Amino acid sequence: MRRMNLTRAFTLLEPGPVVLVTTWDGRKNNVMTISWTMVVDFTPRFAITTGPWNHSYAALKRTRECVMAIPTIDLLDEVVGIGTCSGADTDKFARFGLTPVPGAAVKAPLVAECLANVECRVVDLVRRHDIVVLEGVAAHLDRRRRERRTLHAVGDGTFIVDGRRLDRRKRMASKLPAGL
Amino acid sequence: MRRMNLTRAFTLLEPGPVVLVTTWDGRKNNVMTISWTMVVDFTPRFAITTGPWNHSYAALKRTRECVMAIPTIDLLDEVVGIGTCSGADTDKFARFGLTPVPGAAVKAPLVAECLANVECRVVDLVRRHDIVVLEGVAAHLDRRRRERRTLHAVGDGTFIVDGRRLDRRKRMASKLPAGL
Repeated sequence: MRRMNLTRAFTLLEPGPVVLVTTWDGRKNNVMTISWTMVVDFTPRFAITTGPWNHSYAALKRTRECVMAIPTIDLLDEVVGIGTCSGADTDKFARFGLTPVPGAAVKAPLVAECLANVECRVVDLVRRHDIVVLEGVAAHLDRRRRERRTLHAVGDGTFIVDGRRLDRRKRMASKLPAGL
Repeated sequence: MRRMNLTRAFTLLEPGPVVLVTTWDGRKNNVMTISWTMVVDFTPRFAITTGPWNHSYAALKRTRECVMAIPTIDLLDEVVGIGTCSGADTDKFARFGLTPVPGAAVKAPLVAECLANVECRVVDLVRRHDIVVLEGVAAHLDRRRRERRTLHAVGDGTFIVDGRRLDRRKRMASKLPAGL
C-alpha cells in the first residue's frame, strides 16, 4: 500500500462505494461499515452520517480521527459482517481477518486488505443532522491489486458491483480540479 | 412515471448515482448535475453539497424545493452537458431535450426521461460546509423502463456503470428499516 496524491483522494469516494471506517480509542481498534458518505470539497473533504448508535462514534468524536478504507467485491462478506455486529463486544479486525496497518498521520489503522485508505481528521460535527465532516490528510493505494471493483450498497441488503467505465474526460475538462 | 413508496426512496440515492437536481425559480426551470450527495436518514432525508457557484443554488435557497432525478446510462451525454453549462444563459431542459413534468408536492419539475424522481424540501442549509439537507416528500419510479443501470461519477471525467447485483438480504435483515 503506497502513498497516493491527496489531490486524487476524492475520486475514491465520489462514485459512492461502501466504505469501512476505522477508529482507535486509545486501547483498541474498531471498524464500521458506512454507506452514507459524500465528498464536500476537492481539498479533500468528506461528510459521513453517523452517531451514538454506532459504537465507533465515541472514539471518532473523542480522537477526532479515522480512516476510510475502500473494500472491493472480494470483501463483501466482511463488509456485511462488520456492518451487522458491534465493536462493543467484538474485535472486528480479528473476527473478520483484517490486518491493521499504521497510517502516516492518524492513529486509526489502515486496512491492509482494502484497495485504498484515506486517513482523516474530524473538521466538524454537525450534530443536528448527525453529519461528521472530515478532512483527508493522507491517502494510500494498493497499486498491485488486481481486483479493483468496489461495492455500492443499495440499502435493502443488496449491493451493486462496479461495471465498465465510460470516459468523458475531454468534455468534462472545464470542471475538473487542477492537477488531477 | 408512477408514485413509489417513500420508505424505499433512500435506496435510489444510497448506491451513489450521479443525479440531476431540478429547481423552479418562479419563472424558469433549471437543472444541475450533482454527484456530491448522501443519505442522512431513512425518513428519507438527504444531503447535497452545493453553493453560490451553481446557478441553481439561488432558486434552491429561495424556494426551498428541488427534485432529485436519477438518470441512467443512456443519459450520460445529457448528464455531462448539463454539468458543463450554466442555467444563467441556457435553458437546459430545451437544450438537452428533457421533458419537465409537474410533481405532486413541489414546483420544481420531475424529469420524464429519468428512471426515478424524488421531490424534496430543504430542511436546513449548513452554510459553513455548503451542505443542503433535504427531506424527500414524494417519489416516482418509471416501472416500464428497461434501462435501469445508473452512473457513478468518479470525479476525473470518467463514470462507472452499474454492474451486477449481489444479494445479502438475509444476512442484512437485522439492519434494514421496517417496511422496506
